Amino acid sequence: MPFLGVGLGLLILTGSSCFVLGAFYEHCDFLRNLHELIQEDPYAFYIREKLYATVATAFNPNCLHRMPDSCSRMSEIMKYGFPGLDDIRVYSDFVLSYDRRNRVAHWVYEHLRAPCVKADGTNINRKECWYQPDMSVPSNFRANLTDYKNSGFDRGHLAAAGNHKCHQTHCNETFYLTNIAPQVGKGFNHDAWNQLEIYVRELTESYGSVYVCTGPLYKPKRQLVGIATYSEHTRPTDEKWCVEYEVIGENTVAVPTHFFKVILVESKMSGGHPYMEAYIMPNAPIGKNINIRNFLADIREIEHIAGLQFFNGIRRSFFFGTNYSTTPEIYNNFQ
Amino acid sequence: MPFLGVGLGLLILTGSSCFVLGAFYEHCDFLRNLHELIQEDPYAFYIREKLYATVATAFNPNCLHRMPDSCSRMSEIMKYGFPGLDDIRVYSDFVLSYDRRNRVAHWVYEHLRAPCVKADGTNINRKECWYQPDMSVPSNFRANLTDYKNSGFDRGHLAAAGNHKCHQTHCNETFYLTNIAPQVGKGFNHDAWNQLEIYVRELTESYGSVYVCTGPLYKPKRQLVGIATYSEHTRPTDEKWCVEYEVIGENTVAVPTHFFKVILVESKMSGGHPYMEAYIMPNAPIGKNINIRNFLADIREIEHIAGLQFFNGIRRSFFFGTNYSTTPEIYNNFQ
Repeated sequence: MPFLGVGLGLLILTGSSCFVLGAFYEHCDFLRNLHELIQEDPYAFYIREKLYATVATAFNPNCLHRMPDSCSRMSEIMKYGFPGLDDIRVYSDFVLSYDRRNRVAHWVYEHLRAPCVKADGTNINRKECWYQPDMSVPSNFRANLTDYKNSGFDRGHLAAAGNHKCHQTHCNETFYLTNIAPQVGKGFNHDAWNQLEIYVRELTESYGSVYVCTGPLYKPKRQLVGIATYSEHTRPTDEKWCVEYEVIGENTVAVPTHFFKVILVESKMSGGHPYMEAYIMPNAPIGKNINIRNFLADIREIEHIAGLQFFNGIRRSFFFGTNYSTTPEIYNNFQ
Repeated sequence: MPFLGVGLGLLILTGSSCFVLGAFYEHCDFLRNLHELIQEDPYAFYIREKLYATVATAFNPNCLHRMPDSCSRMSEIMKYGFPGLDDIRVYSDFVLSYDRRNRVAHWVYEHLRAPCVKADGTNINRKECWYQPDMSVPSNFRANLTDYKNSGFDRGHLAAAGNHKCHQTHCNETFYLTNIAPQVGKGFNHDAWNQLEIYVRELTESYGSVYVCTGPLYKPKRQLVGIATYSEHTRPTDEKWCVEYEVIGENTVAVPTHFFKVILVESKMSGGHPYMEAYIMPNAPIGKNINIRNFLADIREIEHIAGLQFFNGIRRSFFFGTNYSTTPEIYNNFQ
């Protein structure tokens, strides 16, 4: 009966190894599908740790190296986390969160690389780009060209067109009205704001890899109440804080009171900490002789006004640089 | 050699069936984990179709009936879709989306059932409920008790405390400041708004199952510009639209100009279409003799002002009822 013994042993061995093989096959198949979804869908990307935890077994190390090492542009751009989660829209070279209430983005995230911001040697034809509504936004939340017409405001880019010169599509997509906000033209969009955009491109040319997050602010301002009246019911020096902003066109597109930019420069040195800077500029004419470094701002102020959280989960001390204004010595020493 | 043939056949049979069994085991294990995550996490729930698609194979029908038939309270409450996706917070008996910019929820969703809204026979002690900040909100987006103090505004509930009488915890959680907004007390929170809340509970007692979505509005208003001046540069009858609202306290908690309620009553008849109604009320004193049905509103107006989308993916014609105001005959015929 040794035959039977060997046969039974072989059967058990085959059965169990095939069981493991089957489980492994299914496991890898699923992990691949999940990985693809996470690279595609921003909300899946946001909860990726929880999703990967649903398949966490001893298989993983063996399985992962068989997976396609695909890393989507979206996951590259959002490397430092989502500032917010409202209506996230993924374009080919930038990602934004759309504010359906104000018909202007909450924030637009870009990852700039030196070759794509250079002025020369690209085949991009800016004449082929035209402003257009993003038809994927439901009609009652969509800004249209007519909203901006005769409003007195520029159609100002959040992700600047000049930052996306590697492909015609990248440039074209910056002209979607989801990436546009009403900006004061003279003294702001054509001047100080443009200088800030140029400065970001210079940083990119110098350091190679820069992350920029741009967005609108609706900043509260102080109003004095009851100054002129002295009746029993008004306190003469009372003050209150108000948020006030104009809305333009049929779709009531909000005119932000200010705009912000949060800039993160990755170090050229391997393992070096990134450098961070933030700016707040009023959506108003700014004198030509005013240096943009006067608008350096504390990132926490932007977070408080905008209700956004930058670099989620990364300790602030990780960053080279500072939250406070005018720090030339730190800036000058960064490499 | 018939032994060898039979042996080989048996080996192949065992191997292949064990392979399938292994795959099936792994598949079911994963599907169970995924199902649990979807029931727990609102963002996983939002992309649930995409997630289930990652495991879609021929196994599913066999596998699903072995899965726990667990359906979380969250998935019950959000049955008709998410009006928006910003910072979703799941409580034990309601779900809300928190507006970090305004420190007031975007919307609060409740599913009311007759036994939990009844005034009598419950063990809920309202004295055990107290207003408190939700410490899970990051500190720079959190409303605090001091923000409301001496502001002149009530701490008004969005999900009404009286709707959650089945468990002490349910009631307690409605007192988190994430569920609270600054409301005018006399003539609004104590009066007209309270009447609307009582009306919703009456509907629940009559029909058994009611979904309510409540939230703030920041409604644009017309401002006349340049009326008094007749210089070359001002057009005398020019008008512009503005959003203006007060913000109170250190954390600049927004005072909404209006509040809305969208009410969906499920039919008692099996297969019957639900009935829908929407209300907009100004955050201001409202005369006691004004019937709340005067505030019936078009749901599309709420969607436009708030930037929210209700009953996502369900055709409006599905609903019994209407978007327009005062339709007593439809209301009276609903059962």
